[in-house]
Amino acid sequence: MQLLSKFIKHVLKVSIMKILVIGANGTVGQTVVKELSLRHEIILVGKSKGDYLVDLANPASIADLYSKVGMVDAIVCAAGSGYFAAMEQLTPDNFKAGLDEKLLGQINLVLLGQKFLTDNGSFTLISGILSEEPILQGLNSSTINAAIEGFVVAAAIELPRGIRINVISPTMLTESIDSYGAFFRGFEPVDGYKVALAYSKSVEGANTGQIYKVR
Amino acid sequence: MQLLSKFIKHVLKVSIMKILVIGANGTVGQTVVKELSLRHEIILVGKSKGDYLVDLANPASIADLYSKVGMVDAIVCAAGSGYFAAMEQLTPDNFKAGLDEKLLGQINLVLLGQKFLTDNGSFTLISGILSEEPILQGLNSSTINAAIEGFVVAAAIELPRGIRINVISPTMLTESIDSYGAFFRGFEPVDGYKVALAYSKSVEGANTGQIYKVR
Repeated sequence: MQLLSKFIKHVLKVSIMKILVIGANGTVGQTVVKELSLRHEIILVGKSKGDYLVDLANPASIADLYSKVGMVDAIVCAAGSGYFAAMEQLTPDNFKAGLDEKLLGQINLVLLGQKFLTDNGSFTLISGILSEEPILQGLNSSTINAAIEGFVVAAAIELPRGIRINVISPTMLTESIDSYGAFFRGFEPVDGYKVALAYSKSVEGANTGQIYKVR
Repeated sequence: MQLLSKFIKHVLKVSIMKILVIGANGTVGQTVVKELSLRHEIILVGKSKGDYLVDLANPASIADLYSKVGMVDAIVCAAGSGYFAAMEQLTPDNFKAGLDEKLLGQINLVLLGQKFLTDNGSFTLISGILSEEPILQGLNSSTINAAIEGFVVAAAIELPRGIRINVISPTMLTESIDSYGAFFRGFEPVDGYKVALAYSKSVEGANTGQIYKVR
């Protein structure tokens, strides 16, 4: 596949990227892989299955992933969830645990992944609508999503070698109504395909520091 | 002072609040104390001096503070700073350490402090301009400030008993030009007094879930 990519790049002048997708088996990840694999080489990463495994809450596991995979053209994250609970049930410990995966996990993907991206490569992270429209039991997620967006906007002005970074902020997916519908009453769901298009815009476009809202 | 407060409340119908100010000795804290002490009873809290001491990075220290102080009418935070460094120098460890004080410290002030606020009491936290206008070396702070704002907007819809929560987002203070001017080139500084007024608006007003920007 790598040889084929090189051949096509050089001879046909079509740009095929090598894209690392973390959370490839999740609801968002599957639709992103479906869209990007039409035109690119995808490396599937998951918590329990995939070409490689990673535990986002553990920085050493992220470092290990990169050392095994080596250089890629894009690092895409579709993984991580906050801790859903009523505010009165939140404690310093369970709040922090919620942050470890989706917030620190994604931040560490970027901090440790910078040197594994080719020139003009890109990061695409995931936040979500709760940063701007809070719901009951969503306090942990609202905090995480807002933090990821602040991180992306600021990282965009510091990344070297033309490396870009954007974040996708989806509302609830049609595919997730069974699991999340009760939390998101009144929120109009969107098809996963629309979210996949936003990832495509980030990976295959040229913008940086953008929050792509999918509503 | 407590007897006097009670006397004035009952006889003159003037509302004197008991306000816990964390970070009372900092640049922001001093100006906030100056303004609020004109009309209220202030309990000074600092890392190394004050009526009480607290280490915001340690949840047990926050719990200990509340158990000693007991019920108050307002909990105000003017403390915590991010970790300033170029992105290429950021690691999972130092990034996380930056979060422990200003982000998790403030979140834990709220999670643990809910039951120590009287009915209709208030929390006032601090973020800063870097959540919307990033600067070089400010990635950690941009992340923290955005997170605090997401937390406050979401916590406002869950807090019980009429308890309110707001956040003050100052730009660089005139009083801080010597320490921070080199980081904030082109940013128009504001006098600490304007920041103190925003705290007054949050503590003595009736709004909740607001981000008071001081620019």
